[in-house]
Amino acid sequence: MQRYFINVDPAQEIILPQEPAHHLLKVMRAKIGTRVEVVLADQYVYIAELIATAPVAKLKITQKLSNNSELPVSVVLACGVPKTKEKPELIVQKATELGATKIVFFEAARSISHWQENKRERKITRLQKIAESAAEQSHRNKIPQIEYCDNLTQLLNNYQATKRVVAWEESAKQGETSALSQQFQNLKTGDSILAIFGPEGGLTSDEVSQMNSTGVVSVGLGPRILRTETAPLYFMAAISYATELL
Amino acid sequence: MQRYFINVDPAQEIILPQEPAHHLLKVMRAKIGTRVEVVLADQYVYIAELIATAPVAKLKITQKLSNNSELPVSVVLACGVPKTKEKPELIVQKATELGATKIVFFEAARSISHWQENKRERKITRLQKIAESAAEQSHRNKIPQIEYCDNLTQLLNNYQATKRVVAWEESAKQGETSALSQQFQNLKTGDSILAIFGPEGGLTSDEVSQMNSTGVVSVGLGPRILRTETAPLYFMAAISYATELL
Repeated sequence: MQRYFINVDPAQEIILPQEPAHHLLKVMRAKIGTRVEVVLADQYVYIAELIATAPVAKLKITQKLSNNSELPVSVVLACGVPKTKEKPELIVQKATELGATKIVFFEAARSISHWQENKRERKITRLQKIAESAAEQSHRNKIPQIEYCDNLTQLLNNYQATKRVVAWEESAKQGETSALSQQFQNLKTGDSILAIFGPEGGLTSDEVSQMNSTGVVSVGLGPRILRTETAPLYFMAAISYATELL
Repeated sequence: MQRYFINVDPAQEIILPQEPAHHLLKVMRAKIGTRVEVVLADQYVYIAELIATAPVAKLKITQKLSNNSELPVSVVLACGVPKTKEKPELIVQKATELGATKIVFFEAARSISHWQENKRERKITRLQKIAESAAEQSHRNKIPQIEYCDNLTQLLNNYQATKRVVAWEESAKQGETSALSQQFQNLKTGDSILAIFGPEGGLTSDEVSQMNSTGVVSVGLGPRILRTETAPLYFMAAISYATELL
């Protein structure tokens, strides 16, 4: 069943905003009586029925579901701004499917691309849309938030979490294999974790020292070199496996 | 350091084939004395030095490394042929980085695209190249093999393994959460695992029954719906976490 996020209180009349209305009526060719899943402002999933198509599309709730497809911990990914336009889009789409709560792009020392101030908002709006449609498709209860951060100091100041880790290639090269699972084993339901990833050229050792000095733990993601867009996806799958399937 | 796969015995003279030679001399602008990593026919990594550039590029081994970046188990992914051209490419690139041994595309009941016989070889050759370059970049010791399989029966007959699993959405929907980790916990070094994934529309229940009747175990990959190209990547990260980091 098609799923839409609608920021409306379940006690109120549910009028579909323009975009989901267009999708439901034109793309999905829904008719009066068609049932859809909606996630309302309370982050619960409801089954609702289309009861009017014009002048606005209206839905009536028929059932509240207890489904929850969210990870037991909230995961904030912080990714050094990658070189191409495609990589942030891939990271956002896949990390949304895999359960991320928030995805922050930050300007790292070796970031080659820079998000100029006048284009930032447009970039974030575009990535936020990708997150929304991936959240609908993967049946999430939440849409991850997309944010931008000017520099590492600001990132470390503004993004507190129960645990903070950085994926550090050198950890893996030194044959370190248990730091990630140690961090995961201490996580409790409701905890939060910030995971930091470098851009294409990797993080500098200065950046990693600065992180370590504020308590961010270096972790390896195995013996293979992962591309900048693959590392956060590895992390998301690993934390899902460790907290949902183990 | 740049890494190349060269199918030459380490006791023989190492002449770079045309493509890596072009890459090393033209793209990387290497000069006599430049050092590279090469993986030779014995699947070991060597440090080698460029000793001649014309008429052919020759390398001399200076050191044998004991690096092994391969998973302790061999993983064969079998993916229902996806709809678009981009998805097999993404699966191959990312699964190579994440350590897969072999990637088979098979014609599933709900596969919308079909690889016509006269185009198959070209498609496989193209995907094999993507695997090779991803293997170089991620510092693998092996290049995964790309294969194609006409139908499920053939897949089940031809691809034997220590364990065989299928990612089945319905398992996840029924709240099954431990089948995957049970399978992983019984794996020993040197074992093999075949993991099967559906195309965009998913597998049919007939297909899953046929698999189950030959001993393939249904496993869930968590509560979120993963796209056809995301599920194998989740699987690869989870098996790396379970066998390399836990």
